[in-house]
Amino acid sequence: MAIHGGAGTILPYLMTPEKEANYRLGLSEALSIGSNILKNGGSSLDAVEAAVISLENFPLFNAGKGAVFTNKGTHEMDASIMCGLNLEAGAVSGVSNIKNPVSLARLIKEKSGHVFLAGSEAELFAKKCGLTFEDDAYFYTVERYKQWQDVKDSDTYQLDHTDKTEQGEKKFGTVGAVALDKQGNLAAATSTGGMTNKRFGRIGDTPMIGAGTYANNKTCAISCTGHGEFFIRAVVAYDISCLIEYKGMSLKEACDFVVKDKLVKFGGEGGLIAIDYFGNIELPFNSEGMYRAWQFEGKNPEVAIYK
Amino acid sequence: MAIHGGAGTILPYLMTPEKEANYRLGLSEALSIGSNILKNGGSSLDAVEAAVISLENFPLFNAGKGAVFTNKGTHEMDASIMCGLNLEAGAVSGVSNIKNPVSLARLIKEKSGHVFLAGSEAELFAKKCGLTFEDDAYFYTVERYKQWQDVKDSDTYQLDHTDKTEQGEKKFGTVGAVALDKQGNLAAATSTGGMTNKRFGRIGDTPMIGAGTYANNKTCAISCTGHGEFFIRAVVAYDISCLIEYKGMSLKEACDFVVKDKLVKFGGEGGLIAIDYFGNIELPFNSEGMYRAWQFEGKNPEVAIYK
Repeated sequence: MAIHGGAGTILPYLMTPEKEANYRLGLSEALSIGSNILKNGGSSLDAVEAAVISLENFPLFNAGKGAVFTNKGTHEMDASIMCGLNLEAGAVSGVSNIKNPVSLARLIKEKSGHVFLAGSEAELFAKKCGLTFEDDAYFYTVERYKQWQDVKDSDTYQLDHTDKTEQGEKKFGTVGAVALDKQGNLAAATSTGGMTNKRFGRIGDTPMIGAGTYANNKTCAISCTGHGEFFIRAVVAYDISCLIEYKGMSLKEACDFVVKDKLVKFGGEGGLIAIDYFGNIELPFNSEGMYRAWQFEGKNPEVAIYK
Repeated sequence: MAIHGGAGTILPYLMTPEKEANYRLGLSEALSIGSNILKNGGSSLDAVEAAVISLENFPLFNAGKGAVFTNKGTHEMDASIMCGLNLEAGAVSGVSNIKNPVSLARLIKEKSGHVFLAGSEAELFAKKCGLTFEDDAYFYTVERYKQWQDVKDSDTYQLDHTDKTEQGEKKFGTVGAVALDKQGNLAAATSTGGMTNKRFGRIGDTPMIGAGTYANNKTCAISCTGHGEFFIRAVVAYDISCLIEYKGMSLKEACDFVVKDKLVKFGGEGGLIAIDYFGNIELPFNSEGMYRAWQFEGKNPEVAIYK
């Protein structure tokens, strides 16, 4: 199993020891929750959902509690989930006040008859399903509010949870998880608050099956984090699956080619986590760093932030 | 160049001669508008946009004027466009009162800095750009209203512009266009009103780059019409591109494999139009019929509805 908490200009000199310890704690907890489900014979779908819920509930990551502010001062969140066994998928975009958007994505997959729901109407579906709602105060964090204040009167948006406004610094604070269970089934899930100060109902790659999230037992499970527009245009997650299925690449070859060659030439900064049906794990990124953690079956968990 | 006006249970005995003539007229007009642009050296992007505008303005097709009613009695439209030269793309979902959603998709591609915008916020962007709005009356058609009345008090939705409510009849009334211009650039565009009586902000494959629409000068341009949920899960448009690029299939082999084999086994009813960089055109569908028209350079236009 592998998880991520976003990629971007994450450099040691921009980080305090306390903050780094906090990020590591959030990653460790989420990985442990997901890994335990797998160890006990649970499904990869349950494991990725539980790990992403843990990341959504952790305020440092840009998803669920800790989601960035939109141009209107609201929190509008996107999420998706996909099951590699039957290619069933659920996705949601632009929802507010949903405590765990990834669980709404899963309910959409299982109970809506659809794949992709959006906006206030998707919130009605969540209400009908009895999902937990939180008030605006739950989603408020001081740091995100400051980030929004820095840019709210400008036409610009911040790509993500940049807490220093240094020139050229970019962070993409999506969270995600991929897993392979004992039954041999792959699953992937991704969740995000999007871009600080985003406007016009912008949708990134996170809720887009094939772009930000994809899982197929024949190939791999993928969850992306990065400059969403480029990831959509490059159909990143499904591209890796196709390179494995149609071109016979290994997971590592496909990941390196897409993230470190194609996306770099294309201008698409970010990274992804990937697991294939052999249990191989890749965590490539072309930015300075990516919050990530992974665990092979029977091995110790590992957490990393920088290159 | 090729265009479509939707696929589904389109059978001669369900059609009146007048209605068939009307459909053929709408297809011929749209093809002629797009083809003339190409003949005069215009871009494939201009050609697909103009052809889709023509189909959106024609009330028989489920896009723009003639879009189906949602569960709330509104019209919520989706569209997308993609340029094969630079993989730039624009998409919009869940917008009302926009006369030509495909033009909004193009403006998003060119002026928003984003790829995908949604809902009332996307309408604000359209207003800012000076796009033409129409009142609800413009989008009202008697036939669509009747279709909605037939199902509005039920929990069901109609997949598309079924005008007979016979058991098992399904139609997918998306419109789309693909084109190759004299400069060798491919482009694709798709537009839809979605499903009659749709709820919860449902998004289909139409605005999803890689699923309902894709264009890449290295491979092909694709516009899909069908049961959107299956097309999203199968990432249909990009799948065909990958089969050409990574597996070395011809356009025909890739189209036949995806539409007549993979999608059939998967349960995904519908079809698509495709053009590759050699100017080959394919119009495969696995339903009873698909409204379609196409024209090779220097040849006469052709229009077809049934198998």
